[in-house]
Amino acid sequence: MNWTNKLARILNIEYPIIQAPMFGATTPEMVAATSNVQCLGSLALADLNADKCIEAIRLTKQLTKKPFATNIFVHDIPEITDKLRVDYGNAKTFIEQIAKDNNLDIDIPDIDQLKINSYHEQIDAIISEDCRILSFTFGNLDKQSIEKLKSNGTVLIGTCTSVSEAIILERSGIDIICVQGWEAGGHRGSFTSEDIPKIGGLSLLAQVNEAVKSPLIYAGGIYNAKTLLASKTLGASGFQLGSLLLGSKESALKDFEKERLRKVREDDVVLTKSFSGRFARGIRNTFISGMEETEFILPYPYQNKLTSELRRVAKINKNVEFVNIWVGQSINDFSGQSITDIISNLIRQVEAINSNEN
Amino acid sequence: MNWTNKLARILNIEYPIIQAPMFGATTPEMVAATSNVQCLGSLALADLNADKCIEAIRLTKQLTKKPFATNIFVHDIPEITDKLRVDYGNAKTFIEQIAKDNNLDIDIPDIDQLKINSYHEQIDAIISEDCRILSFTFGNLDKQSIEKLKSNGTVLIGTCTSVSEAIILERSGIDIICVQGWEAGGHRGSFTSEDIPKIGGLSLLAQVNEAVKSPLIYAGGIYNAKTLLASKTLGASGFQLGSLLLGSKESALKDFEKERLRKVREDDVVLTKSFSGRFARGIRNTFISGMEETEFILPYPYQNKLTSELRRVAKINKNVEFVNIWVGQSINDFSGQSITDIISNLIRQVEAINSNEN
Repeated sequence: MNWTNKLARILNIEYPIIQAPMFGATTPEMVAATSNVQCLGSLALADLNADKCIEAIRLTKQLTKKPFATNIFVHDIPEITDKLRVDYGNAKTFIEQIAKDNNLDIDIPDIDQLKINSYHEQIDAIISEDCRILSFTFGNLDKQSIEKLKSNGTVLIGTCTSVSEAIILERSGIDIICVQGWEAGGHRGSFTSEDIPKIGGLSLLAQVNEAVKSPLIYAGGIYNAKTLLASKTLGASGFQLGSLLLGSKESALKDFEKERLRKVREDDVVLTKSFSGRFARGIRNTFISGMEETEFILPYPYQNKLTSELRRVAKINKNVEFVNIWVGQSINDFSGQSITDIISNLIRQVEAINSNEN
Repeated sequence: MNWTNKLARILNIEYPIIQAPMFGATTPEMVAATSNVQCLGSLALADLNADKCIEAIRLTKQLTKKPFATNIFVHDIPEITDKLRVDYGNAKTFIEQIAKDNNLDIDIPDIDQLKINSYHEQIDAIISEDCRILSFTFGNLDKQSIEKLKSNGTVLIGTCTSVSEAIILERSGIDIICVQGWEAGGHRGSFTSEDIPKIGGLSLLAQVNEAVKSPLIYAGGIYNAKTLLASKTLGASGFQLGSLLLGSKESALKDFEKERLRKVREDDVVLTKSFSGRFARGIRNTFISGMEETEFILPYPYQNKLTSELRRVAKINKNVEFVNIWVGQSINDFSGQSITDIISNLIRQVEAINSNEN
């Protein structure tokens, strides 16, 4: 298999394989290990403030000299209305009660105490740290940010979950489009948070490939050589791995979470807004079921802030029913090997199939 | 491309391409045209009674001497409980009112007047007409039916939407498994009607391919050579075409429905129980939105019976807001060519790609 293509050249990597930015599971070690095998690591910054972004970037740079991407959420932050304030209060009461009932001692801040960061300060941090590859989800960067990043020589990777989102990204000058199939784990990268597109990877990637000229990364369900090669046939020139890396040595998931992951059955995997206020795919548990029965799941980022203490304390208590374990629709063995071994094995598998066919 | 494989041999066809059974869009002409180009046509019998099944089979046999499949729904019929009776009354009132408001003159039968057929009488009809290929959805055939059909030499094709459904089919001796990806149009073939699996084709097909040994047909999103070849890479040896054939000359859709279809946008395509009581993918319209706002969508087949008059009269009146137009997630040009031309073009496309690569 000839891995060299336009996308690999733009990203300055040998193998166009991308480690998915998975906030909560990604570590500087995971990012660096991926980049060190000549692929592209992605450092998930989610909604960290500028200082935390700089800290994570510097930790990663200590571990690799190779290029890696940073990844941010470019959502708009909803204003705090009276209704939101009331819903926040109700949801806070509900979560505090369910935590207490399960012996989790938490203290959720009031809505006015929340610190909500704009992605603009993250962009300044990323530029100041001289990171030259930026991927993003939940919409498109605003025009000024695109200009600022481009004049700094930053390669931009946008995420689409529909053909129309892909067209918007391409028209605004984004360099590479990551096509997120329905199969993917974690947050849906859709531009909207309600009524999101729900298009399976096979249909989506084939149609995006016809609609735009930009190099495409495919994300969603790749876990072996066949799934990688199928996405290549459909038009991808970059191949993103997420769930396949969740069990790895470098994953930030705790042992009890990896154990849960390795027992997952296909009907445990659900799409839910319960943890963050945006749809994400992961393992159903008591919290998801309970929260979904209420009528006050808040919009992102408020729901995310509301549940953050619960998740932190549940993690310390090894309580699998109150943490978010994101995972996609390709159930695999969630190997505990190193990132280097997992990715190298996949590359060998792909090359073996190709040499058999030629 | 070498089309010959085990599946083609079992089905006695030259190209392992299957025309999807699409009740309401499939005609004997469509089935025969597909079989006459050495592929497999599928005659959709849905819940027709035995006499209607025999009529449709005989019409098809007049048009082709080649093998074709018949296709039935193997659902269990829920008992009429007091709650169902009340819901039926409410839904009937709602549908009659919305019809009246839109100048559609309909008369819906009371629940006790409904004639509900069991699939067992269909099987007897199929055997008596000497049809030797039977595909089915909505579950698995019961053991006696499997034995009866096998002793008659019938090739059985079951439909799965999850790995566990595929395993059930294989263990019960079904010969071929049709893997229905999330992308597919029309009814979800799931064994259950609530909490259905929602697995994208790429993840589903790859995993089913690892879990079972039976030959696999892939259904869901195939609309060109690349999507067909991707499903081949994932493990399919048969390739089912549904939406690609909807606009064809032989399609039973009326001109006003084909016109609507050719204007469809990706965000018009939704999954709904409104028309039949089972989830199906199609084009959103006034009826779907209205029915979904009520709290009494009945289980299949009751909802299907309830809406059947509405759909019939709306079709006569060319009212696109009250007919069900099923379609999958691969929006294509919905060509008005003949089945022969559409399928032959696809075969040529596939062969062109393969000869370029070799």
